[in-house]
Amino acid sequence: MNAYVNGLQACAFSTVSRAETYILNTRFERPTLVIDTQAVARNYAALSQGLGRARVHFAVKANPAPEILKTLADAGSNFDAASRAEIEMCLAAGADASRISFGNTVKRASDIAWAHGAGITHFAADSEEELEKLALHAPGAQVYIRLIVGSLQADWPLSRKFGCALEKAPALFAYAVSLGLVPVGLSFHVGSQTRRAEMWTETLDQVAEVWHGLKAQGFAPSLLNIGGGFPAFYGQEVDAPQDYAAAVMRLIHARFGDIESIMAEPGRGLVADAGAIAAEVLLVSRKSDNDLHRWVYLDIGKFSGLAETMDEAIRYQFITERDHEPTGACILAGPSCDSADVLYEKQPVQLPLGLQSGDRIVIRNCGAYTSTYSSVGFNGFPPLDVIAI
Amino acid sequence: MNAYVNGLQACAFSTVSRAETYILNTRFERPTLVIDTQAVARNYAALSQGLGRARVHFAVKANPAPEILKTLADAGSNFDAASRAEIEMCLAAGADASRISFGNTVKRASDIAWAHGAGITHFAADSEEELEKLALHAPGAQVYIRLIVGSLQADWPLSRKFGCALEKAPALFAYAVSLGLVPVGLSFHVGSQTRRAEMWTETLDQVAEVWHGLKAQGFAPSLLNIGGGFPAFYGQEVDAPQDYAAAVMRLIHARFGDIESIMAEPGRGLVADAGAIAAEVLLVSRKSDNDLHRWVYLDIGKFSGLAETMDEAIRYQFITERDHEPTGACILAGPSCDSADVLYEKQPVQLPLGLQSGDRIVIRNCGAYTSTYSSVGFNGFPPLDVIAI
Repeated sequence: MNAYVNGLQACAFSTVSRAETYILNTRFERPTLVIDTQAVARNYAALSQGLGRARVHFAVKANPAPEILKTLADAGSNFDAASRAEIEMCLAAGADASRISFGNTVKRASDIAWAHGAGITHFAADSEEELEKLALHAPGAQVYIRLIVGSLQADWPLSRKFGCALEKAPALFAYAVSLGLVPVGLSFHVGSQTRRAEMWTETLDQVAEVWHGLKAQGFAPSLLNIGGGFPAFYGQEVDAPQDYAAAVMRLIHARFGDIESIMAEPGRGLVADAGAIAAEVLLVSRKSDNDLHRWVYLDIGKFSGLAETMDEAIRYQFITERDHEPTGACILAGPSCDSADVLYEKQPVQLPLGLQSGDRIVIRNCGAYTSTYSSVGFNGFPPLDVIAI
Repeated sequence: MNAYVNGLQACAFSTVSRAETYILNTRFERPTLVIDTQAVARNYAALSQGLGRARVHFAVKANPAPEILKTLADAGSNFDAASRAEIEMCLAAGADASRISFGNTVKRASDIAWAHGAGITHFAADSEEELEKLALHAPGAQVYIRLIVGSLQADWPLSRKFGCALEKAPALFAYAVSLGLVPVGLSFHVGSQTRRAEMWTETLDQVAEVWHGLKAQGFAPSLLNIGGGFPAFYGQEVDAPQDYAAAVMRLIHARFGDIESIMAEPGRGLVADAGAIAAEVLLVSRKSDNDLHRWVYLDIGKFSGLAETMDEAIRYQFITERDHEPTGACILAGPSCDSADVLYEKQPVQLPLGLQSGDRIVIRNCGAYTSTYSSVGFNGFPPLDVIAI
């Protein structure tokens, strides 16, 4: 794991990644995400090794760049898709249907039918109506039931949007059987950016209780889908992916014993640190002569790739060409005429005092949830460009 | 103004718009925004009449659909553009450069040079560095200085992202003159969705003080750009556009006297109620048997067009084909595998209890800030489709 902490200030004596080096040596016409496929392959190898016999299903939504999907397909990865289009992208990258799960618990009926026809066998569900849609459009499919778990320790505890209450799982297993489906197991999501393996303990305890309860009721769950949550580095220290994954697997073994099949759905953990964004400073200003902070406006913002700065949740790190100069606090904002397009204001960012319009800036560890979040053309700005190296 | 209050329940006895009627009579393969250009033309006529001799510059960012731009260009509207691409769209719609202002206070230097070459003469600025960029790339340009105003009464008070402090305006006027630019006036934004004309009073008082102060210091401001803020109907009653605009103009006249040139930048007010979205219910579920609310999942969400539901700010109204049935509260969510993609949860929505997967749903008054906010392909979902009628 890279040891660059506190971004800018530490930059002079920290590792500059291959993607970042590429950006520093290139001129771009517009904001561009540079993805290092070698780093993706390296992350996959490390995580796979740590996960042991658990299968990796890359969460395609994190970054569906064809070069990433191809790299992972070649490396032997499986895929978790959120939609028909994502399944089509995985197939195009060379993964056959047996390696792709349809993990969205909210699927369009016609997409279920299409996926079933394409040979997809594993589907997620968390409700009666979704099981009915599956029974009708993918008869006999293998289904894993997603649970709501209390993920109190993640940086981003997930809402109740996905999953059913723990006590509802047996009823959904029974209902699936009655509909002719095969309920193979359980899935859950510990919460995005779960920084340390110990943070999984409480969630795994909850899921194990449901798992063993199902067995006691005569069901035979064989698949545990542990979802994502594998962290990327955004300024707060995280464990090396291999150690992290191995520690999670030990926690699982202690609670579940021997499980026939375990799958994991890393997204961010595979691609975040493989990408960096080339951006430019458009303006530096002060609102009044006695303004406490400068305002720094970039040519990329919340609506053109940096959606995860919402509520200042993900705090990106930066490289500029003035990192040897003295720094000061500033409010960082995007280029659009939208007052919500402010990246960091509550907790300002330290950037060089000499920064000015036209300066280049590298946004680090941007490989996940940037390119596809980008709007089609808000304010007339084109979507984030993507280059794979 | 339509009298439909409380959306659904009132729907049976309220006006269904032309766009909504079109949706109810058509089948769509994916979420689609239907724009009624006749409604846009009607809104333009009403607002223009209310605004009297003030020129309307349509805020292109609200909806740059070519059919909207063409309708407004033909009707004689001017345009406010946020970027080079938006200027190009206006030119393509038949508006010549003299009718287009470049209103973003954060512009790329190369875009300023391009716009200057294309014949654009009016630019916004709120800082020294932006004036320097303008002097270098658009020498002699006419500049209006944007002010930060206290817009305490708008539904969405804008942040400090745009504008300079009131007391800084004279210094920026003087600096513009020293750079060979022509500082022609002031601009401000009262705040999005300012529902009643009286809410402008405090802001106009502030701006008038700066205006008269500039005159006292020997400057000759001739252009007042009153920005946008013209409201659309989202469930809370608003004044008819013509009456509203006329009332604002009276407030201006009382404070500024005779002004050579007034421009207004309505966006939402011209297009919001001209559009409706055709959507579909993908799933209705309960998280547990004793769950207080149903969850209703649509095939459109925060990342595919309904970004303005952020913090539940804009509350859209709905039409379903079950509006004669009993209703109940539900949490409304989008289709993506993102836990942030929940539209209304804190304040649930009333929808028919019989609603189920496959049901069609019309989202009303969606003509503004939907299509271009839509992501390029998050979760593999395509951007919002747009049809003009």
